[in-house]
Amino acid sequence: MLSPFLQACHKLPTDYTPVWFMRQAGRYMAEYRRLRASHTILEICKTPQLAAEVTLQPIEALDPDAAIIFADLLLPLEPMGLHLEFAQGEGPVIHNPVRTAEDVERLVVSNTSDLGYVSEAIALVRRELAGKKPLIGFVGAPFTLASYMIEGGGSRQYANAKGLMYNEPETWNRLLEKIVQVIVPFAAAQAAAGADAIQVFDSWVGALSPADYQQFVLPQTTMLIRQIQTIGLPVIYFGTGASSFMPLLDQAGADVLGVDWRIPLDEAWRSVDFRPAVQGNLDPLTLLAPLPLLRSRVEQILDRAGGRPGHIFNLGHGIIPQTPVDNVRAVVEMVREYRPKS
Amino acid sequence: MLSPFLQACHKLPTDYTPVWFMRQAGRYMAEYRRLRASHTILEICKTPQLAAEVTLQPIEALDPDAAIIFADLLLPLEPMGLHLEFAQGEGPVIHNPVRTAEDVERLVVSNTSDLGYVSEAIALVRRELAGKKPLIGFVGAPFTLASYMIEGGGSRQYANAKGLMYNEPETWNRLLEKIVQVIVPFAAAQAAAGADAIQVFDSWVGALSPADYQQFVLPQTTMLIRQIQTIGLPVIYFGTGASSFMPLLDQAGADVLGVDWRIPLDEAWRSVDFRPAVQGNLDPLTLLAPLPLLRSRVEQILDRAGGRPGHIFNLGHGIIPQTPVDNVRAVVEMVREYRPKS
Repeated sequence: MLSPFLQACHKLPTDYTPVWFMRQAGRYMAEYRRLRASHTILEICKTPQLAAEVTLQPIEALDPDAAIIFADLLLPLEPMGLHLEFAQGEGPVIHNPVRTAEDVERLVVSNTSDLGYVSEAIALVRRELAGKKPLIGFVGAPFTLASYMIEGGGSRQYANAKGLMYNEPETWNRLLEKIVQVIVPFAAAQAAAGADAIQVFDSWVGALSPADYQQFVLPQTTMLIRQIQTIGLPVIYFGTGASSFMPLLDQAGADVLGVDWRIPLDEAWRSVDFRPAVQGNLDPLTLLAPLPLLRSRVEQILDRAGGRPGHIFNLGHGIIPQTPVDNVRAVVEMVREYRPKS
Repeated sequence: MLSPFLQACHKLPTDYTPVWFMRQAGRYMAEYRRLRASHTILEICKTPQLAAEVTLQPIEALDPDAAIIFADLLLPLEPMGLHLEFAQGEGPVIHNPVRTAEDVERLVVSNTSDLGYVSEAIALVRRELAGKKPLIGFVGAPFTLASYMIEGGGSRQYANAKGLMYNEPETWNRLLEKIVQVIVPFAAAQAAAGADAIQVFDSWVGALSPADYQQFVLPQTTMLIRQIQTIGLPVIYFGTGASSFMPLLDQAGADVLGVDWRIPLDEAWRSVDFRPAVQGNLDPLTLLAPLPLLRSRVEQILDRAGGRPGHIFNLGHGIIPQTPVDNVRAVVEMVREYRPKS
C-alpha cells in the first residue's frame, strides 16, 4: 500500500489530502537554529548525520506526510568545478561564474560521486523513517542552475543569463545539456539510496517569457524529467512566478506540477486539463496570519481542489524564518480534518 | 483628433499600434547618465527643468508615441511625513517606516501641494511637446505604496506588510485609505498641469495571492482608479507578477491594463474578455537579443494582439540600464512597420 503522498503523486484516491511544506526544515524551527549556531549550511549538507537530523526535525514536530532531504540545489555545482560559498545573510555566491563557451567546456560532468554525502543522508533518513513516511529527494532544474552559474548568485534581472541565452544559444544549450548530464545521475543516486520521489525545483523560471521558456528551456527540462522518470520515481516539477504559463510547464511531463500562490488552484489545474497531479498552493506568508484567516485560506485551497484525486497540499513557496511553528502544525491538522463538501 | 496612444486607451482603431516604453528615460541613455553624474534622482525630480529635460530625452532619441513624466512613485511619501532617501545602488530607503496604528495616524494627508514640482515639470513638457505627443502622468498604487512604507524599502517576502495586513486589517485599511486620499489630488494636479493619462503602478502586487488581493487591496485600488477617472483621464493600471490573476486586476476598472511578459498577450486579453485596452508585453531583457530574435518576439506580440483596437505596445517592465539604445529605437520601427496579417 502506497503512502497517501505517493498515491496522490499517481492521482490515486486517498483518505485525506497529504500535506508537506517546502523548506519544512529551516530557520523557523528552534531545533534547526540551534544546530545552525555551530554549523554552516554546507557543513550540515555534507555531514550525513546532521543532514538526516535536520530532515527529521519537522517530521517529529509537525507529522507531515512526507520528508524532504535537507540539501541545497547548488551542491552539484561544486563537483562541476565551481567555487560555491554561502555568504552570511546573502545567499549563495559562485566565485567563478560561467560566462563564456570556454567556461562551459571546462565544466566537469563525471564527478557526481562526490555528492555521495546526499545519498548517505537519504539512506540514514530512510532507516529512521522505517517505511512510515515517504522521503522526497530533489534537484535543481536546468534554467535555475544555469542562471545561478552564469549570474554567480542571486539576480533581479538575469541580464547575464538571458544575454548568453539570446546571444550564444549554442553555448546556452551546451550548458543546459551538461547540467542534465550531471543532474540525472545525481537523482538516480538519490533514488538508489531510498528517495521515493524527486522534486525538480525551477525557482527562477518566472523570470522567463513563455516564448523564451518554450524555445530555450523546455527541451532540456523535458529531457531531465523523462530521464528521472525512467529511473522509476514520480517527479514533481515546481516553478515559481510562472503560474501564468502552466500549460508550458506541464509540457515538461512531470507527474506532479507544483503551483505557486499567485493563481487559484482550480484555475491552475484546469489550465493543464487536470493531466498531472498538483501540489500547492498556500502563500507561505499566510502562515503569519491569525488562525481563522489561515483556516479560511487553507480550506479555500482544499475546496478548489474539490476532492479530486491527485492534490498534495503544500505552500506556494518555502516557509520563511519568521513563521510560528504552531501555525504550521495547525495547517497539518486543518488539512487532515478537512472533508470535501459534497 | 486624438493621438494614436489616446485612441488606443479608448479602444478606438489606430493606423498603427502606438508604442512607448516603461522607464524610457533612464540609465540606458547616455544623455541621462550625463545628467545623473551631477544630480541625484531626487534633485532631478524636484527641479522641473531637469525633470522635463529627462522626460524629453527619449522623445528626441526614439520618437515613441507618448512621453511619461520623469518622477518617482515614492515622492508623495515625503509630504506624508516619511523620510525618503535614494541610497547609492540600493534603491529607495524610508528611514521612518510605518509599522503601527499610531504611525498610520501620524501620516499627513493634506500637503500634496508640496508636490507642485511634478506639475511644473508636466507643464514644461507639455509646452515643449506642443500637442505633438501625449504625456502620461503616473502614481503608485495603494498596495505598492503601503508595502514600501511598511517595509521601509525593497523587500523579498513582504513579511512586515503582509503581517500588518493579516493581523491589523483595520490599520491596513486606514493606511490604504490615506494613500488614496493623497494620491487622487496628486493625480488631479498632474491632470490640471496637462497630463493626458495616468498610469497607476502596482509594481509589487505580484507578491499577493488572488484571495489576499481581492480582500485587502482591490477595494481601495478600485476607489483610486474610479476617482482618477472622474477627473476625466484614462487610467492605465500596471501590475507585475500578477498575470495569473488578470481578471481580478481588471475588476479595479482601469481603461487600460498593463500586462507583464510572463503571459501570452492574447491569453491575458482573453482572460479579461477583451473589456479594457491592454498595454505590453515584451520582456525588457529581450532588448539585449540580436535583432532577428527581437523582431520575432515583437511581431509575435503584435500577432497575438491581432489588430484588435486597444493595444498599446510596451515592455512588460522597465528598460534596464544595460539596454542598447539602438535596439529600443529598432523596436519603435518594428512596431510602426508592422501590419496585421489578414
